Amino acid sequence: MSSRRFGSQSLLRLLGQWQHTSSRTPLWRQLAQALRLLILDGRLALDTRLPGEREMAAALGVSRTTVASAMAQLRDEGYLVSHQGSGSVVVLPESSRKVPTRMQQQTAVDLSTAALAAGPEIHQAYQHALNLMPTHFANTGYDQQGLLALRETIARRYSARGLDTRPDEVMIVNGAVSGFALILRLLTGPGDRVVVDHPTYPLAIAAIEGASCRPVGVTLPASGWDLDGLAATIAQTAPRLAYLMPDFHNPTGRCMDAATREKVADLAAQTRTTLVVDETMVDLWYDAPPPAPLAAFNPQAPVITLGSAGKSFWGGLRLGWIRASSRTIATLVQMRDTLDLGSPLLEQLATGWLMDNGEQFLPARRQMLAARRDFCAALMREHFPQWQFVSPQGGLSFWIELPEALATLFATRAESAGINLGTGTRFGLQGAFDRYMRMPFTLSDEAMRAAFTTLQPVWASLIHQPVSLRQKKYI
Amino acid sequence: MSSRRFGSQSLLRLLGQWQHTSSRTPLWRQLAQALRLLILDGRLALDTRLPGEREMAAALGVSRTTVASAMAQLRDEGYLVSHQGSGSVVVLPESSRKVPTRMQQQTAVDLSTAALAAGPEIHQAYQHALNLMPTHFANTGYDQQGLLALRETIARRYSARGLDTRPDEVMIVNGAVSGFALILRLLTGPGDRVVVDHPTYPLAIAAIEGASCRPVGVTLPASGWDLDGLAATIAQTAPRLAYLMPDFHNPTGRCMDAATREKVADLAAQTRTTLVVDETMVDLWYDAPPPAPLAAFNPQAPVITLGSAGKSFWGGLRLGWIRASSRTIATLVQMRDTLDLGSPLLEQLATGWLMDNGEQFLPARRQMLAARRDFCAALMREHFPQWQFVSPQGGLSFWIELPEALATLFATRAESAGINLGTGTRFGLQGAFDRYMRMPFTLSDEAMRAAFTTLQPVWASLIHQPVSLRQKKYI
Repeated sequence: MSSRRFGSQSLLRLLGQWQHTSSRTPLWRQLAQALRLLILDGRLALDTRLPGEREMAAALGVSRTTVASAMAQLRDEGYLVSHQGSGSVVVLPESSRKVPTRMQQQTAVDLSTAALAAGPEIHQAYQHALNLMPTHFANTGYDQQGLLALRETIARRYSARGLDTRPDEVMIVNGAVSGFALILRLLTGPGDRVVVDHPTYPLAIAAIEGASCRPVGVTLPASGWDLDGLAATIAQTAPRLAYLMPDFHNPTGRCMDAATREKVADLAAQTRTTLVVDETMVDLWYDAPPPAPLAAFNPQAPVITLGSAGKSFWGGLRLGWIRASSRTIATLVQMRDTLDLGSPLLEQLATGWLMDNGEQFLPARRQMLAARRDFCAALMREHFPQWQFVSPQGGLSFWIELPEALATLFATRAESAGINLGTGTRFGLQGAFDRYMRMPFTLSDEAMRAAFTTLQPVWASLIHQPVSLRQKKYI
Repeated sequence: MSSRRFGSQSLLRLLGQWQHTSSRTPLWRQLAQALRLLILDGRLALDTRLPGEREMAAALGVSRTTVASAMAQLRDEGYLVSHQGSGSVVVLPESSRKVPTRMQQQTAVDLSTAALAAGPEIHQAYQHALNLMPTHFANTGYDQQGLLALRETIARRYSARGLDTRPDEVMIVNGAVSGFALILRLLTGPGDRVVVDHPTYPLAIAAIEGASCRPVGVTLPASGWDLDGLAATIAQTAPRLAYLMPDFHNPTGRCMDAATREKVADLAAQTRTTLVVDETMVDLWYDAPPPAPLAAFNPQAPVITLGSAGKSFWGGLRLGWIRASSRTIATLVQMRDTLDLGSPLLEQLATGWLMDNGEQFLPARRQMLAARRDFCAALMREHFPQWQFVSPQGGLSFWIELPEALATLFATRAESAGINLGTGTRFGLQGAFDRYMRMPFTLSDEAMRAAFTTLQPVWASLIHQPVSLRQKKYI
């Protein structure tokens, strides 16, 4: 099993703004820290073969000694193995227990994952599901479209939200990411372009690249969506798909208003561009429920809608669904067996119960999360007055603008203090957004306060250096 | 969302021996039947655009009237829609409830799926799992490698079978097909070759083609494996992977002996060819337990082993696992998020209980299945004396050799009688094996007898035609 080679230009893009001339940390150590963060973030994949030291030094514009020292440090820490003549390969230290992934959950305090623990209703749902199971035990258990009863529940929910839906327009999948991978498999081929918001959900980028397609970003403005930018990008790149999160966008937490939904749907209909609308966060609204699903605004628009139980209820429920025309659903169901053979029955029954009874506990969940959001905002204003943010309308996190491109440096130092941060670069293409961070507000108030108390001196050590030493161009 | 075009040569290969000159059925009806079977089998995918009538007639060597009549029939039945100037597209009849897939479960009597209903231990396992769930509710529920306790159970099981395994050499996936899709994503690129037995498991072919790779078949001899053929194919085609089912091969039910395992493992080590060993059927042995896992025979061989709960316990448990070097596992875990975000916790806990307690119910399951196998063999000798088969050593089905290439014709007629048959062509590349059928012995004795009583006159009507009218070249 041979390693994948990684070109120095790709590495350069991935590293982004790794070099902070203001820092008192030697350059080789900064490089080692930046590479280690890429490995721990899952962005520099295990088993990747790095370029040679000479090539890397030339590409990064540093001395070969700097590169050699950084590599030696990573070898000592167990993140690289080198064999004479065949370069260095990314590995895991023997002591490390968990594989680094693009979804982080490694450290005691994790501020990089936006997800919640399970409420008591999850146990109730599973118990209810288990009571229903015996009626299904007489079957082989294979079902690639999903239980009719659950598809009926989902169809009713869409219809109630303003998008008339029949059960044959729904299929059950193993979560929204799984559904997106299936859609990509049906509708794209290697090298095809897929439009995404920029920033966007890191696992959407990963799924697009995993399907050998190329993500093309449309930069989000300070608020709302850039409709002209979207139209121009579609016209110029002729993408196979566009992936959008109108309710609520991850990482910014913004909600697309009804007028914009209509225009986006019209654009999709006019250009015959399939939209994949990921509604994973749709139940997590705080100020007002979102408008009707985007697909409802133009019945001629080719829209595929993705739903998920992971955020509304619990991440441990690995279940989602796809809503599309019955013809598209039938084709997706038929080719699903190239990826998996269906979703577990018990999870389907539990999710059905949770959806049918959601109004018993979702309001309290929204209230709790809105309070955490406001508490987190107050804490951030107190501890980090330089951070800019707007209060998210939904979802689970803030999108923070730093005064400088310091996210990678801040994250490497926070990691040494035992706190995992989500740098903005995870949400961008080619190293963009090092001036941003995603900050989830899913921790309890005490845990959040403790984390911020730890982070404050780390941040202060970065920001309180004399201005003259800082790299002015990023201010 | 545009339809995929399908060339006439591909259609020709897929149709195989559709034309039976001995039959009294008109040629256009035979063509319509063969096309309908391909659609119902999921082998001619929904949304596929067929070649034009003129092109199809030329490729099939029949008159344009024959093609036009067949297409008109399929349009009438709702399997095709045609638009002026843009050809005919495969669709589903409005009345049809279930999407046809490569795993069939559509008709009242399904002799095309080899799977079982759940036993009482499944309910017990879920109840046990539910009792353990509260300790996991404090987590976000995301875990891309799988629960340590389950990985420990699986590692112990491999070690007990002769393949020393640590928990970090195991990851949990959503079934063996899902695991294979992940392995293909890591180790192959578009156009790569993957070696398979011929015949082989249809969903392995689907997964390989779904990953834009090319399956290359090594024909299985009358018994055992053709080691020279495997070595020659590897030498000639330089495949990225070879996919094998030593215990037990689907559809033939054969088991690879220890000496062959050693030679295959040595071949993999010498040629640095990664083997994917699918052990889905390993618990379903009837005469003797299989030898140690193939990977145990040469520690230098790059072997990835796939396991599954679907056949040992129940198809409704959508859970499997991958066993490989810890480095390969770490890389697979890391890139998994391009396909899904992990396996449901409850399914993992239930599977762990079933594996820990398997010896309480697996012996009875084997005994029951061995009895069904022998009953089915006796019934077949009684009803279909022309069929040739050897008793499978494991798995869930017979591989039947017919006296002529009649499987497609037989299956189309059986379908009219309400019985779904698995033609051999599903298990082959490019329409091969129309002289074979896979016959599962998973139905109860009464259901099996009833099905065979229905099938006997259908078969007799094919075989009892005067020999002079039959196509002699297939005898």
